[in-house]
Amino acid sequence: MVDNLINIGLLGCGTVGSGVVKIIKRNREEIERKAGSRLNIKKVLVRSLDKERPLELEGAELVTEVDKILEDPEIKIVIELIGDVERAREYMEKALRKGKFVVTANKDLMAQHGREIFKLARDMGVNVYYEASVGGGIPLIRPLKHSLAANRIMRIMGIINGTTNYILTQMTLQGRGYQEALEEAQEKGFAEQDPSSDVLGKDAAYKLAILASIAFDSTINMDSIYTEGITEVKIRDIRYAEELGYKLKLLAIGDRMEEGLALRVHPTLVPDKHPLAAVNDEFNAVFFEGDAVGEIMLYGRGAGEMPTGSAVVADVIEAVRSINHQVENGVMEVEFSQKPIMPLSRIHSKFYIRLKAIDEPGVFASLANIFSEEKVSLDMIIQKRRIEEMAEIVLVTHDIREENFFRSIERIKEIPSIREISQLLRVV
Amino acid sequence: MVDNLINIGLLGCGTVGSGVVKIIKRNREEIERKAGSRLNIKKVLVRSLDKERPLELEGAELVTEVDKILEDPEIKIVIELIGDVERAREYMEKALRKGKFVVTANKDLMAQHGREIFKLARDMGVNVYYEASVGGGIPLIRPLKHSLAANRIMRIMGIINGTTNYILTQMTLQGRGYQEALEEAQEKGFAEQDPSSDVLGKDAAYKLAILASIAFDSTINMDSIYTEGITEVKIRDIRYAEELGYKLKLLAIGDRMEEGLALRVHPTLVPDKHPLAAVNDEFNAVFFEGDAVGEIMLYGRGAGEMPTGSAVVADVIEAVRSINHQVENGVMEVEFSQKPIMPLSRIHSKFYIRLKAIDEPGVFASLANIFSEEKVSLDMIIQKRRIEEMAEIVLVTHDIREENFFRSIERIKEIPSIREISQLLRVV
Repeated sequence: MVDNLINIGLLGCGTVGSGVVKIIKRNREEIERKAGSRLNIKKVLVRSLDKERPLELEGAELVTEVDKILEDPEIKIVIELIGDVERAREYMEKALRKGKFVVTANKDLMAQHGREIFKLARDMGVNVYYEASVGGGIPLIRPLKHSLAANRIMRIMGIINGTTNYILTQMTLQGRGYQEALEEAQEKGFAEQDPSSDVLGKDAAYKLAILASIAFDSTINMDSIYTEGITEVKIRDIRYAEELGYKLKLLAIGDRMEEGLALRVHPTLVPDKHPLAAVNDEFNAVFFEGDAVGEIMLYGRGAGEMPTGSAVVADVIEAVRSINHQVENGVMEVEFSQKPIMPLSRIHSKFYIRLKAIDEPGVFASLANIFSEEKVSLDMIIQKRRIEEMAEIVLVTHDIREENFFRSIERIKEIPSIREISQLLRVV
Repeated sequence: MVDNLINIGLLGCGTVGSGVVKIIKRNREEIERKAGSRLNIKKVLVRSLDKERPLELEGAELVTEVDKILEDPEIKIVIELIGDVERAREYMEKALRKGKFVVTANKDLMAQHGREIFKLARDMGVNVYYEASVGGGIPLIRPLKHSLAANRIMRIMGIINGTTNYILTQMTLQGRGYQEALEEAQEKGFAEQDPSSDVLGKDAAYKLAILASIAFDSTINMDSIYTEGITEVKIRDIRYAEELGYKLKLLAIGDRMEEGLALRVHPTLVPDKHPLAAVNDEFNAVFFEGDAVGEIMLYGRGAGEMPTGSAVVADVIEAVRSINHQVENGVMEVEFSQKPIMPLSRIHSKFYIRLKAIDEPGVFASLANIFSEEKVSLDMIIQKRRIEEMAEIVLVTHDIREENFFRSIERIKEIPSIREISQLLRVV
């Protein structure tokens, strides 16, 4: 089934590029089975050949001239991860003109020049994939284009910048000021040394432009997005918001209205009960409201080597499938293996136990001894004195092997002063 | 672009079937543009021709013999929504043998006979689509197969039965007993008259089998899923769980482990801070943990006419694209319209305002008068006396037109005793 070989050219080998190489290496067998072809990263565009690289590139040729990739007729897919808009655009357009499929994570480029790029791709009979440009590894663009295709999307609302969400979370939970929280984010690698694109809301605006263009079927001019960052947010406002039942988040919001679209990025008070209020730290989440499906939320890590690499490699697999004109069910579901199933007795769980015992000395000690002998350790205990000399005891265990747990339960049932095991439930 | 016509046969016209007809009717233009073909529901299989139908079927022919659909060479796509496993299997296999693409929402069928069905589809060179079989309109199957294709999925964990989640939510939030909550769910249409498949966990087990077969690339035997329902859950346990910091949910869990797969459906205590703990009422949500992407959560309505119809119609669009061998970027992104953009001044928002005022009589009245004249109504107010005769006032408005709000802010700035508008933020 997997016989032909698809050669790939990688432009840029920074954080996301390293993720791509690692993921293909780690999951090569499954990825190639899903793609229906063997994959080979043939050439990698780098700035300098001399730099030490911790990454094993498995025989890929390092090049400093982009044309060695773009002019190579064996290379069918170009992954563009160089970032810079103008240079990326030039390379991408050249790749498309050479009939290559392109995968990119470049949100600035796709937000500003998506339309021309899609036109060129169509004229050349190839595709451009850009799932990684918004929300890292969270499936957003493909669900919008495919899974929600029957819907008229009425609203997009989301947390799509991890840096600002990290800063706001620190301010909210730790009581840090903006500057202090920003510095911490920079130390932890969640904010760039020049954080302006993130904290001023521009990064979120680019991503909103991309999502809105798909959801609302419209070209979006960046100037039409009202953009307000988080630099003026005060800890005082976060506290008042809490008092009123809100969390403060930087939201990107797009609405389809009678008269047109309304697009904006601004700090926003979100009701505590709204699922977006619970999206903390560097996580991202996006709500789509469709006229048929209602509200859908997609949540996950919006950035980083492996999550963004995950989206890039998924796009590469799609590109290969498209190159191969593969029938969808073909490889995916027919060549199932049958994996062994673990009996529940051998897996580990945490348990909640509620039992009734005669309230007399030594009951708890006998319970505790049995658990100890069976290597069941306890995490939480509630005991309340109740009527008729009976005590109700509630226990939560740590993670333990199910068979050990049930063996101890059988032994506990034998204790004369235990009257009833009233409930057993698992805990995650 | 949209010139050819694809004829569709609909087997069954109950809740989901009605949703499918309504969605295609309502969003026909956009759906056909995305699909790249005109769509025509040519024939509908019904039990009786005499029954009154509230639904307008737009000229579709009603038939009571399935062969009028399966033997019709003009029908390229069959939508199977009859439910019953054996009959559905027979019809679906016949449709595939006739070279028709099939879309189904039948989880029992796909969980039990998916493998044979996929094989037959491959042999015939057609596809079977079944996104609607799990999680209603929530994108689950396609993201697993496409967006997360670069990942080794390590864990699936989700709330995938709306009936039991509704019952458990009622027990938790309203303090109702199991029986009472079940009856309420039945009255509201969230539970069937015979609720056993839902409350015993079988429905969730079927759905888990489908997700696990894709995520773990394995055929799943239903017997290998440990299944425990919610009929023995007591309100008492829900209360203890709360005391310990948990919510009680019916979870379906699949783990990929060294030695094999572990698959189970059981009532589970979920830590309050876990996003699944906040999934209430009839909503569904599924976590996938991938080795590259980390944790992803997909959330939405897991059942119902329109959400499930949304997934079925999305599958129909995919089927049409596959029939047309369409290049993905082709129609989707090149034929963009340019929609008008609404100025922010004309949209409605809620606002949070923090201001400083001299603490003297009449200040609040003058604020209130301006807001009233500009039709800005207030939702919440906090006022605290502070040092140096200055009061800090925090206000939250109801939804109001942005231009009215900013006009009132300009007027408020003119009030002599208002010293500073310290902050303006929007509220969702």
